Amino acid sequence: MTNANRALQRLTTAFALALVCSQTVGAQDPLPSWQDTAPKRAIIRFVERVTKPGSPDFVAPSERIATFDNDGTLWSEKPVPFQLFFAFDRVRALAAQHPEWKTREPFASLLKGDMNGVAAAGEKGVLEILAASHTGITTDEFARVVQDWITTAKHPQTGKLFSEMVYQPMLELLAYLRASDFKTFIVSGGGVEFMRQWSERVYGIPPEQVIGSSGKLKLEMREGKPVLVKLPEVEFVDDKEAKPVAIQNRIGRRPIAAFGNSDGDLQMLEWAMAGQGARFALFVHHDDATREFAYDRTDKLQQFNKGWDEAVARGWTVVSMKNDWKVIFPAGKP
Amino acid sequence: MTNANRALQRLTTAFALALVCSQTVGAQDPLPSWQDTAPKRAIIRFVERVTKPGSPDFVAPSERIATFDNDGTLWSEKPVPFQLFFAFDRVRALAAQHPEWKTREPFASLLKGDMNGVAAAGEKGVLEILAASHTGITTDEFARVVQDWITTAKHPQTGKLFSEMVYQPMLELLAYLRASDFKTFIVSGGGVEFMRQWSERVYGIPPEQVIGSSGKLKLEMREGKPVLVKLPEVEFVDDKEAKPVAIQNRIGRRPIAAFGNSDGDLQMLEWAMAGQGARFALFVHHDDATREFAYDRTDKLQQFNKGWDEAVARGWTVVSMKNDWKVIFPAGKP
Repeated sequence: MTNANRALQRLTTAFALALVCSQTVGAQDPLPSWQDTAPKRAIIRFVERVTKPGSPDFVAPSERIATFDNDGTLWSEKPVPFQLFFAFDRVRALAAQHPEWKTREPFASLLKGDMNGVAAAGEKGVLEILAASHTGITTDEFARVVQDWITTAKHPQTGKLFSEMVYQPMLELLAYLRASDFKTFIVSGGGVEFMRQWSERVYGIPPEQVIGSSGKLKLEMREGKPVLVKLPEVEFVDDKEAKPVAIQNRIGRRPIAAFGNSDGDLQMLEWAMAGQGARFALFVHHDDATREFAYDRTDKLQQFNKGWDEAVARGWTVVSMKNDWKVIFPAGKP
Repeated sequence: MTNANRALQRLTTAFALALVCSQTVGAQDPLPSWQDTAPKRAIIRFVERVTKPGSPDFVAPSERIATFDNDGTLWSEKPVPFQLFFAFDRVRALAAQHPEWKTREPFASLLKGDMNGVAAAGEKGVLEILAASHTGITTDEFARVVQDWITTAKHPQTGKLFSEMVYQPMLELLAYLRASDFKTFIVSGGGVEFMRQWSERVYGIPPEQVIGSSGKLKLEMREGKPVLVKLPEVEFVDDKEAKPVAIQNRIGRRPIAAFGNSDGDLQMLEWAMAGQGARFALFVHHDDATREFAYDRTDKLQQFNKGWDEAVARGWTVVSMKNDWKVIFPAGKP
């Protein structure tokens, strides 16, 4: 065999292998952790409709925008949104520099581990804890503090890292959408500077595709260099009616698919569904007390009531975590 | 020749062609409208440093963020920023619905074509014109109005469509950066809802990568569907100190390259340059009264003074439009 022939043969083999591989990938189940029930079928049907060239519902890749709530939609949010655990840990870490906290609520209760005392301080108390734990430092310093915390802090009930309490079926959904040329965004009430420190590593969502609540920032010169200081003033709370506003302000296109889990996401889903052409809306329903948490219509922090009714009335997809998901969290994390 | 051999031959030819094509592309000048002077060399040197695997200055593609001012950096801004022409045209189009404007300044002067009268109304007058022309309608309606305008309205001096008064060298630079896996953003004092209607078609920059000034939005239900109404309240003015704030809020990463043309961009360039690793900052200097406009230190609207001094002191790149650009506007547009 000549060298040229050998080269050609190698090339043909490579070509044939590439063909086989692409067929195998095409045939693979993109959502292996989803039961073969209505939600999975609805997702795949929608993605195939909008991505198939020549389909009457075809959507150009640039318009394939999908927005996801975070707390309760991509990761757990019980007993309280995880960012609060960060805030508590940060207050504990800073306590030595703040002797006055020993006698000042809600800090005194928090430092004693008296969560009822913290709760008694109400919303004002929570805002004080958020300000003390999230502001007065530069954005670069805050980024480092969050990165340290997210790689070490553990959930008090499961003992898992918080970043391990993401939903495996939703990770698959994010990957499936991106493989179908969707651009995936987070649109969450959580703090934008908090989420961005790990969203790319954990969800594959880069910082510039994370929208969240934010505090004011101030540009200052320190030692001849500009820094951005986090001020204790709320700038934007990304919840309910504010979610479509944030989507318009930051993305400037209407999502064709939106995903949430509570009434705080209802306006975002309505906004996505009110556009022209094929659309998709999905709520995650927390009904699995054994494997995760069960809460909905009467929950005090994350109510799923009006959204549930509207989803049923309009034929949107509602995922039962108990019945529609084979697993909740990624495997191999004890 | 057997069928198999013929197929192999075709495959090899295709393979060889592909190789040749990729080499040709690699050898092509990415910036043909730039003179072979210091700015072009500095741009190429920077891009090669941050993209070459193994280079000590290598930057991962996800961190290759480049931010561009718009007015005066990507397209012209004289005699006034082009969005003002849009506002004037819109007021004229709406005049029949507003008989009271005939006797109310600054509208009366504008409708008579008396620009000195408009100017006499000062900043307050301009804000009134902006409110009248930009608010009170939904974001979807506003998008259509801008799309109509940008495809028909012409510059009073050049007779070109405004979208033809973009800088050909900057279009090449945007394409070169994107081909080098940069993500290109606009960070402009212009209205975000205005720029997004044509940024993708004209610059290849999608709406979600456009940051600008914005007014407040309000979610309303109309005939059972949500709409976003543009309110006559300023929400954010994206200029000077606000540019680094907007970059942090919206992108969440520090740009490694930033491009501007006036003192309003100085903080953005300082912010980019204050990060770790290889960095690039460039000012476009308008010094070509023959082919475009000449203005700098003493210009009333777009001063380039402090920024120029700092650029020289720090060794940043300053482009002389006259000496460093072979052409200003895209060819084939009379």
